[in-house]
Amino acid sequence: MRATLMYGAGDVRVENVPDPVIQEPTDAVVRVLQSCVCGSDLWPYGSMPASGQGRRMGHEFLGVVEDTGSDVPGLRRGDVVVAPFVWADNTCDFCAEGLHTSCRHGGQWGHDLDGGQGEAVRVPQAQGTLVKLPVGEDSALLPSLLTLSDVFCTGHHAAVKADVGPRTTVTVIGDGAVGLSAVLAAKRLGAERILLMGRHKDRTDLGREFGATDVVAERGEEGIEKVRELTGGDGTHTVLECVGTKPALEMAFGVARDGGVVSRVGAPQYEEGPIGFGVLMRNLTLTGGVAPARAYIEELMRDILDGTIQPGRVFDRTVSLDEVPDGYRAMADREALKVLVRP
Amino acid sequence: MRATLMYGAGDVRVENVPDPVIQEPTDAVVRVLQSCVCGSDLWPYGSMPASGQGRRMGHEFLGVVEDTGSDVPGLRRGDVVVAPFVWADNTCDFCAEGLHTSCRHGGQWGHDLDGGQGEAVRVPQAQGTLVKLPVGEDSALLPSLLTLSDVFCTGHHAAVKADVGPRTTVTVIGDGAVGLSAVLAAKRLGAERILLMGRHKDRTDLGREFGATDVVAERGEEGIEKVRELTGGDGTHTVLECVGTKPALEMAFGVARDGGVVSRVGAPQYEEGPIGFGVLMRNLTLTGGVAPARAYIEELMRDILDGTIQPGRVFDRTVSLDEVPDGYRAMADREALKVLVRP
Repeated sequence: MRATLMYGAGDVRVENVPDPVIQEPTDAVVRVLQSCVCGSDLWPYGSMPASGQGRRMGHEFLGVVEDTGSDVPGLRRGDVVVAPFVWADNTCDFCAEGLHTSCRHGGQWGHDLDGGQGEAVRVPQAQGTLVKLPVGEDSALLPSLLTLSDVFCTGHHAAVKADVGPRTTVTVIGDGAVGLSAVLAAKRLGAERILLMGRHKDRTDLGREFGATDVVAERGEEGIEKVRELTGGDGTHTVLECVGTKPALEMAFGVARDGGVVSRVGAPQYEEGPIGFGVLMRNLTLTGGVAPARAYIEELMRDILDGTIQPGRVFDRTVSLDEVPDGYRAMADREALKVLVRP
Repeated sequence: MRATLMYGAGDVRVENVPDPVIQEPTDAVVRVLQSCVCGSDLWPYGSMPASGQGRRMGHEFLGVVEDTGSDVPGLRRGDVVVAPFVWADNTCDFCAEGLHTSCRHGGQWGHDLDGGQGEAVRVPQAQGTLVKLPVGEDSALLPSLLTLSDVFCTGHHAAVKADVGPRTTVTVIGDGAVGLSAVLAAKRLGAERILLMGRHKDRTDLGREFGATDVVAERGEEGIEKVRELTGGDGTHTVLECVGTKPALEMAFGVARDGGVVSRVGAPQYEEGPIGFGVLMRNLTLTGGVAPARAYIEELMRDILDGTIQPGRVFDRTVSLDEVPDGYRAMADREALKVLVRP
């Protein structure tokens, strides 16, 4: 079959790889209907050292079950399923607590295993990992359901860890697909007010449609001042940091109200962060983390199926599998917000 | 009157200063019965640049009301009261949320104002700040009630922010007075298991009496391994970091269970801390902060008055006001755990 490999920064190729087959009784093989490129894929796309051995790419996909091992009682050939971006047994103590990203038998797609940006995937722990979707292969809801793999669940996780609710004011930092998903998630959880910090008008416009009440284009100290000005000097109860850089984190602490929460879901591009005396004196909490998407899929799926939310609107370009390298380029150049792949 | 001033590292003096008098209608003047030296006083004691102008010291005290302004309806001359280590109006929105350390009319003792390590203190916002104690001036409970000023409330705050409860396993880092207070607070909140990390046997012995189920004397990587060994490899749900150094914080993240909480109350001796990719992947939360002692006094006082807890056991030396400089020395040299001052 064909699949995407990354050989180094800027070097993405679509090549022939072995067809996936059942290896363990707990495996399934899924033919990919839709997958996508993640903002986090852009970090290695920008900096990965060149290597003769390609790394399989893609951790967001939905598709059709083609085959199952002997220990996957809940799925059968032909089922339409979505996969969270980390596989998990959904039975261990961490999974029972909703922390599927720390599953005792879990793991990540890609690298030496199949990734989502290909024609098919061998899925370990298929019974626990895959969630059956009550739609057909040609459903118009598939792009929104695909966001349950990662991006919408990641925005939701930021909001959940920050305990966003009806009496919460929220600042979302970042107008990428995760930031916009965080806006939609905060709105869905009833946030009183949502300030979106971002500089790309087409994106912040979608943010407004998703529920942002204010848009702040300024950054750094100016951005902090602007948010404080809009909030009577205090900042917001919660800040959802959806970028991952140190300046974004510094801004997050700067716009948080005393006693508030900074919840981060952007992959940190830093080893150390600004959590010194001032953060302690103001009783700020830093939370967030890699999203246990599997824990959220059923709940969020309902709102997609009944049309309440349309998180798939973050996709503004669709490519074929052969066009994936150009999809990476378009996202890296900020031509595209998020690229959908139809193998 | 006589009061304590610090002129630089290692240079603590007891000198004559002006007697406090009512300056605002919201003031009270309190004659100090007992005060103490705080672990946080040791930071300037170790590093404060020499200065010709002394800094008034002490932020923990209880005493007797000597005089009140016209706008302190709840207190009268002769009342025995305890003061939290930050004064607050107890009426603003932050105070209403229990975050008295961010009070819109609050402030800190000492520096250019009166501190607790003296014969008397002018108390701003006295109505909101002071809590009346239903005991006499000679009560044997005074040392335990004095810990409500700061040290026991600080340990309690660490546990509260970490949401310690009956199903929580806890690691407490640090066997100083705050660490031991955190042990007692975690026990009081019903923690299932409390691992105390500390190297001073006399202190960890008191920690065991306060509720520690295990003591870990190792530090750094060895300490992390030991805690993991004791917890089936996983670490504990919560970690109460009661030291304030970067190695202590690194250890805290190292012994936290995935999805867990590091709650810190030690004054950070660092500007940046280790909150990179690994912390995100493990969904660890960093919380804690300077304790809003005022929010906790009434609740904790009850358990002291009825004898359930004796947080005053952290005091292992008593000095007169003139002996305060030697009290600092004894704490800095770790001869004394926490020094009580009787002016």
